[in-house]
Amino acid sequence: MSSHGGSASTPSDGPEAQAPARFPTAIYAERLRRAAELTAAAGLNALLITPGPDLRYLLGSRADSFERLTCLVIPADGSTASVVVPRLELAALGDSATAELGLTVRDWVDGVDPYALVASGLPSPARTAVADAMPALHVIPLTAAFGAPPVLATDVLRELRMIKDPAEIDALRRAGAAIDRVHARMAEWLRPGRTEAEVAADIGAAIVEEGHTAAEFIIVGSGPHGADPHHEVSDRTIESGDVVVVDIGGPVEPGYNSDSTRTYCLGEPTAEVAARFAVLERAQRAAVDAVRPGVTAESVDAAARDVLAAEGLADVFVHRTGHGIGLSVHEEPYIVAGNRIELAEGMAFSIEPGIYFRGAWGARIEDIVVVTADGCEPMNSRPHGLTVLGD
Amino acid sequence: MSSHGGSASTPSDGPEAQAPARFPTAIYAERLRRAAELTAAAGLNALLITPGPDLRYLLGSRADSFERLTCLVIPADGSTASVVVPRLELAALGDSATAELGLTVRDWVDGVDPYALVASGLPSPARTAVADAMPALHVIPLTAAFGAPPVLATDVLRELRMIKDPAEIDALRRAGAAIDRVHARMAEWLRPGRTEAEVAADIGAAIVEEGHTAAEFIIVGSGPHGADPHHEVSDRTIESGDVVVVDIGGPVEPGYNSDSTRTYCLGEPTAEVAARFAVLERAQRAAVDAVRPGVTAESVDAAARDVLAAEGLADVFVHRTGHGIGLSVHEEPYIVAGNRIELAEGMAFSIEPGIYFRGAWGARIEDIVVVTADGCEPMNSRPHGLTVLGD
Repeated sequence: MSSHGGSASTPSDGPEAQAPARFPTAIYAERLRRAAELTAAAGLNALLITPGPDLRYLLGSRADSFERLTCLVIPADGSTASVVVPRLELAALGDSATAELGLTVRDWVDGVDPYALVASGLPSPARTAVADAMPALHVIPLTAAFGAPPVLATDVLRELRMIKDPAEIDALRRAGAAIDRVHARMAEWLRPGRTEAEVAADIGAAIVEEGHTAAEFIIVGSGPHGADPHHEVSDRTIESGDVVVVDIGGPVEPGYNSDSTRTYCLGEPTAEVAARFAVLERAQRAAVDAVRPGVTAESVDAAARDVLAAEGLADVFVHRTGHGIGLSVHEEPYIVAGNRIELAEGMAFSIEPGIYFRGAWGARIEDIVVVTADGCEPMNSRPHGLTVLGD
Repeated sequence: MSSHGGSASTPSDGPEAQAPARFPTAIYAERLRRAAELTAAAGLNALLITPGPDLRYLLGSRADSFERLTCLVIPADGSTASVVVPRLELAALGDSATAELGLTVRDWVDGVDPYALVASGLPSPARTAVADAMPALHVIPLTAAFGAPPVLATDVLRELRMIKDPAEIDALRRAGAAIDRVHARMAEWLRPGRTEAEVAADIGAAIVEEGHTAAEFIIVGSGPHGADPHHEVSDRTIESGDVVVVDIGGPVEPGYNSDSTRTYCLGEPTAEVAARFAVLERAQRAAVDAVRPGVTAESVDAAARDVLAAEGLADVFVHRTGHGIGLSVHEEPYIVAGNRIELAEGMAFSIEPGIYFRGAWGARIEDIVVVTADGCEPMNSRPHGLTVLGD
C-alpha cells in the first residue's frame, strides 16, 4: 500500500449510521481554546497531538497515520493552532474541523524533516506536552528537536477530557442503549454445543447491527474460562450448566464507546454459584450507590471490595473496580485503590467488580455510569442478575 | 471490559489457518542473543520492547496491552532477559516463547510502579533503546525512571529486522501467493453499478478465505478516486470505463504481511490511459530490475522515477517507490530519494510506482520483492498490465 492505513472497515448500515462523524465546529473551537489555556497554566509552550483519541477529541479527526508524522500543534500563547501533515495524507483531515476552524496546515513531503517543522514555530527550548498515544518513533526525535523531554498531554488535558459535556454524554447514552440491545438478544446465540468463537462471531455482527461502527472487543468466557478476566474467546464448546461471562463493546459515532458485562448461566445455577453471584450483585450495586461528586475514586473501589470481603470473597476480586470511558475504552478516571481524585459531575466510568474461581467459573457485572449533581446515571439498563438461558 | 483488548477477531478457517502462530523457539533464542549483542555494540545497557511488531519479532508474542506496561527487558550484558507484565495479562504471554526460553517473568498488580520494576534490574543511569511503537504513555515515565531519554530500538535492530531469514521469506512467499489468489478473483466482485465499499467488503472476505488472518487494508480507488494515493474506499458507484486501483493486503501466520496493487479497467482503456499505463509498467519493471545487493535504496527509486520523467510524468508520481515489509506493513528499508542504505540479500520491500491525474484517474502497480544474491525474487506473480474486466 502507498501509505499507512488502519484496519479495513466498511460503512455500517446500523440504526446509528446517520449519527455525525464529529460534533459541530464550535465544540472543537472551545476545546482548543481551553487546551491552550491549560497548557499555559502548566508552564508549557505547546501541546503536540498525533493521531489517536486526543486528536479526535480536539479536532474531530480520525486520521490514523503512524510512521509519517501528523501532528496538531497548539501554542500556549493562544495563537492559531497548526497541523503538520504529510502531503499524501492531507485528504484524511477532510473529515475534521481543521478547515472550518481556520487552522494553519503545514504539509510536508518525503525528504523534509517534519520534527524541525514542528519546532520551527515554537520558542527554543520548547517545553511541550505530547499525546499519550504518540509512538516513541515520534517522541524521541521531537525530544531531540526540542532539547528537552516532553510531558504527557494526559496530565494537561486530564480534567478537560474527563468531564464529559452534554453532547458526549448523549453519545455515551446511545452507546449504552446499543450494547444493551445486543445483551437483550443473547439467547439467540449463546447455547450449549456452540464454541465461544462461534457465539462471539454472532455477537460481533449484532454489535454492528445495533448501531456501533465496529465490534471493538468481545469476551465470551465460558465455564473455567470465565475465571480468567483477560480471556477473550476460544474454540471451547459451551456446555450445559456453564456460567458464561460476556463483556462486549465498541464505538458509536462520533467515536464514543460502550462497554457492558453480563453473566449468563446455561440452565439453573448451583446453590454455590447463586449465593456467590448474589454477593457480587450487591457489591456492584454498592459501588454504583457510592458514586457522587466529591467522593474519591478509591472510595468507590472500596465500596465494592468491602461487600465482597465481608463474605470472604476479597481474594477472588483480582482487578480494579473500573476505568473511565469515552473516545477511549480505557481512560481516566480509574476506579482503583490509591486514586484519590475526587469525582465530579460529567465523569464517565465503568463499575465492574468480578469474582474468579480458577479452573471452575467466574462472573462479572459491568455498567457505565456518568456522575450527576447528586449521584450517577447508568448508561446501561439490562437486569444485573445471573440470566438463565435454556440449556 | 476488565482489561485492554485489541480488535475483536475470531479464528480463520482459511487454507493457512494451520500455519504456526510463531517460529520454533531456537529462532527467538538467536534473535535475543543478537539483539543483546547489537545493544552492547551501540553502547547501550538494555533494549526495552513493548507490544507491537518488535515484541512479536523477538519473542513471538502477540500481546497487545496499551495502558498497562508489558515490557521485554534485554540486558546488553547477555544476562537473562525478563518480561515485566501486569498479572492480569500473564495469560497473553502463553503463545510466546517466554516459557521455553526460560525468561524471568516479573508480574505486577495495580498500585505497583512498573517503571521502577524495569529500572530495578539495570545500571543507573540506564542508557536504553525502546521499541518504536512504545507509546509516550510509557516512554516518558521510563525516561524519568532512567534519568535520560532512550534511543529508538529501530536504530539498534535495523539490520536484524531488515534481513529476513529463510523462515521469514517463506512466510512472505505464502502471503504473496495468498494475495495473488485474491487479485485473481477480482472479476467476481469488481463491476459497474457496485460501490467501492461493496467491492471492498467482498475483497475483505476473500483476503481471509485465501489464508490471511485479517484484511489489514483495502483500497478501491475508482475513477477520480484513483488519483488520490491515500483514498481507501467510499460509497462511490463504479462506472463503466473506470480505471480502478486495488491495493490490498494483510498478515498470514506468523504475522508476515502481503501488499499488492493491481489496476483494473472496466472496459477497454482510452488511448491516453493505455499509453500512460504502459510507461508506468516500464517504470515498475525498471525498478525491479535495478534491485540487487550493493545498490542503494534511492537508486531503485530513481530507476522508476527516471522512466516516468523521460515521458513527462515526473510530477504525477507523488510518493516514494516503496517500503520494507515483514511483521509490519511499513518498515525499513524505505525506497526513497535520500536513503543511501545499500540493499542486501534478504531485504524485503515493495516496488510500487504510481501515476495520479487529479480529478480524472490514477494507476499503481505494486509487488513485494526479496533481494537475492544477484537480483531479487518477486513474491507476487499476477500479470502487471492493466487488467480489463467486462463492463
